[in-house]
Amino acid sequence: MAKITPLSGFPEYLPEQRIVEQHFLDVIRSTFELHGFPSIETRAVEPVERLLGKGGDADKEIYGVHRLAGETSGGRDGGGGDGGAGRREGAELGLHFDLTVPFARYVLEHAGRLSFPFRRHQIQKVWRGERPQEGRYREFTQCDIDVVDVGELAPHFEAEMALVVAEIFAALPLPRMTIMVNNRKIPEGFYRGIGLDDVAGTLQIVDKLDKVGPERVVELLVESGASPEQAQQCLALAQIRSSDTSFVERVRELGVEHPVLEEGLAALAAVIEAGSAAAPGAMVADLKIARGLDYYTGTVYETAMEGYESWGSFCSGGRYDELASDGRTTYPGVGISIGLSRLLGLVFTEGLVEASRKTPAAVLVAVTDEESRAASVAVARSLRGSGVPCEVAPAAARFGKQIRYAERRGIPYVWFVGAGEDGGDQIKDIRSGEQVDAVAEEWRCPVADLRPQVVAAGQAPGHG
Amino acid sequence: MAKITPLSGFPEYLPEQRIVEQHFLDVIRSTFELHGFPSIETRAVEPVERLLGKGGDADKEIYGVHRLAGETSGGRDGGGGDGGAGRREGAELGLHFDLTVPFARYVLEHAGRLSFPFRRHQIQKVWRGERPQEGRYREFTQCDIDVVDVGELAPHFEAEMALVVAEIFAALPLPRMTIMVNNRKIPEGFYRGIGLDDVAGTLQIVDKLDKVGPERVVELLVESGASPEQAQQCLALAQIRSSDTSFVERVRELGVEHPVLEEGLAALAAVIEAGSAAAPGAMVADLKIARGLDYYTGTVYETAMEGYESWGSFCSGGRYDELASDGRTTYPGVGISIGLSRLLGLVFTEGLVEASRKTPAAVLVAVTDEESRAASVAVARSLRGSGVPCEVAPAAARFGKQIRYAERRGIPYVWFVGAGEDGGDQIKDIRSGEQVDAVAEEWRCPVADLRPQVVAAGQAPGHG
Repeated sequence: MAKITPLSGFPEYLPEQRIVEQHFLDVIRSTFELHGFPSIETRAVEPVERLLGKGGDADKEIYGVHRLAGETSGGRDGGGGDGGAGRREGAELGLHFDLTVPFARYVLEHAGRLSFPFRRHQIQKVWRGERPQEGRYREFTQCDIDVVDVGELAPHFEAEMALVVAEIFAALPLPRMTIMVNNRKIPEGFYRGIGLDDVAGTLQIVDKLDKVGPERVVELLVESGASPEQAQQCLALAQIRSSDTSFVERVRELGVEHPVLEEGLAALAAVIEAGSAAAPGAMVADLKIARGLDYYTGTVYETAMEGYESWGSFCSGGRYDELASDGRTTYPGVGISIGLSRLLGLVFTEGLVEASRKTPAAVLVAVTDEESRAASVAVARSLRGSGVPCEVAPAAARFGKQIRYAERRGIPYVWFVGAGEDGGDQIKDIRSGEQVDAVAEEWRCPVADLRPQVVAAGQAPGHG
Repeated sequence: MAKITPLSGFPEYLPEQRIVEQHFLDVIRSTFELHGFPSIETRAVEPVERLLGKGGDADKEIYGVHRLAGETSGGRDGGGGDGGAGRREGAELGLHFDLTVPFARYVLEHAGRLSFPFRRHQIQKVWRGERPQEGRYREFTQCDIDVVDVGELAPHFEAEMALVVAEIFAALPLPRMTIMVNNRKIPEGFYRGIGLDDVAGTLQIVDKLDKVGPERVVELLVESGASPEQAQQCLALAQIRSSDTSFVERVRELGVEHPVLEEGLAALAAVIEAGSAAAPGAMVADLKIARGLDYYTGTVYETAMEGYESWGSFCSGGRYDELASDGRTTYPGVGISIGLSRLLGLVFTEGLVEASRKTPAAVLVAVTDEESRAASVAVARSLRGSGVPCEVAPAAARFGKQIRYAERRGIPYVWFVGAGEDGGDQIKDIRSGEQVDAVAEEWRCPVADLRPQVVAAGQAPGHG
């Protein structure tokens, strides 16, 4: 057997890191639920044909799956159904690379049994075969919410997406996160208004603004056929940013008119207004935001973390009017996705967050000798009955060794059966050294110790 | 684009089914945590070579993964590291088919940063390319706990595994589940004691007892070289079953002696004793249990659900002394795995369990007209501040239509802004029709309505 080595791009966490991840997942899920988004999951695989249909250059990054046994008996069977050996046309399967494309397929497949407008959240792993680098993985977890409706989708959902995410970031022990919002109709209408009809090409160049700087953007635009004046106008638009609706006035000052531009300005103003009422300062209008994927048609979101802007966006999404369609019915939608693995990559690399212990156990029940293990097991059963996570010591070693077992894992309390003067039990807080009489059926764990605390680094309570 | 069709073996749930699944997952996770098992996850892929190394005939069922882009530029790159195109020896990857083999690799890879004995729980999807059938899927979720130690593993963990699982099944709204326990050393020592040295071959035949019946088992044993007396002895052993330690006496009555048999009897008696003290009736010693996988070396577990025995085992595991070894150090372990997807297959096919609603939302805040949507959004914000999951109506339709929106999803309450005689708000319980004055900051949701209730079918409270 080959030596065991990590696989680049497939991160694995230690238990103490996983406790941080679980805290993030719990905050995300409970916030999604507070906002009335039920959960669904989709299967990990989709027909490759469907994965290739959308998502820009995602085709370069797809992992195909094939049955090893099917292969040896000639050709590939992606697992499409019959378990047989031959490769069947259209049945080749690949791992999903995001949750939006599978969600669109889910809506079409199950439309008859869903109620619209359909809200859902979805938290799952996705896979991309791209080159691993800082904050980019081959296996990673996405946390999405979307709302889709039949035929038409009310615009108020576009503000809601960003507000749910703002609430999540406010609840996590992280630096301040800003949600940057734009509406694709603004650049589209603006470019058409100044006579530039290659909207996608122009957007692609403007999207490089943060990377290459304003002068190079103007150069690239001129190289692609724009006049210097048109290029300057595009740049001026991209540089508009405001935390209130004043961006509308600043766009108007550029003197460009187009009905699509007006639509976009009104839509973005509505999102920013709803946002500043509900979560002041969390959202800004930022007219350079474009998003790479080609399925967005209106509002688009990106985020930036204060002090870590170079890490890029941890959360993005937008409105898509044509992603889910069966030819007769179209289901327009809007959604936003938190890149949890990217976020945790930053958190662990920079040491931003820590867990107070490596296990859910709040109490270690010591074992006096192996003959009396049953008494310790009975204490543990009582504690669990009151909701206190605990474990029984693995061996009846010296008490000093049992206490070190707890210390190494950050378990705050050790329970000693029959250690009191009257033969009753005692519990020791191993952080303070305090040891007091206790009765298993009556002992109440301080709320702060019941679960591992996950806090900004340097702020962990108790341990010292 | 091809027509959308379900993929056989890849089940997908509707939101109301997913609520049942989440309830099961929550009970499983919180019980694992109460018993002090921290969570880990392993990557979905392992080198194919490692997957082929263990697990009996699993090789027939493995899904390989390959980069679609890598393929077109010649050969396969399983994703081993450099993102390059060529296939590299030993780097071919496959999706894991269980959580035990990846866990053993995780322990070896991270041993220097783990504390032993190492306890963990792991809840993840796994994939097998086998033919889909009732209760058998190609993508399914497993929920495992294991304890591993360095060199030696204390036997008391073998009872603990089964007790954790017994607690979970007692907490789920399901028919009674029995955990059947055996120790592989009992048949091994017994067979050797009567002069049968092909232990694996004999076990394989005896394992068919429930399928083919006692007479056929005796025939098969004789065909494989046993004398009729030896075959009858094997059958007699396999038919012993007791919910207390009386099985020991019944084995002794068969008059066979062997030191390995004695070891096995003592170990199984200890597990059953600890079990009947902690969870009377949950565990039985059943000497025909063998388990297919070849890595178990001592205690083995299976389960059966009352009334649904033909569905087979929903939870199984055992002790393995040699699964995780780097050549110098061996990490013996014991674990048990709940086959959640199998269990849900039964639950949904037989309609055993139902959720009281299709969404986490307990309240729908009605919208009087689009101009006053912000007032409804503010009410929803207040309710969420008190922990009440809610959503705002998607459109300012007639109130009757908004109430039907709530009804279709099982949302129990609808909130009307400014509907009271004094201009205050009102809340309607749409099950009873009762409508009363309410203040968003003060309203408390009845605990039973706060989350969807998941109960045995026909026992849902309130609705109807």
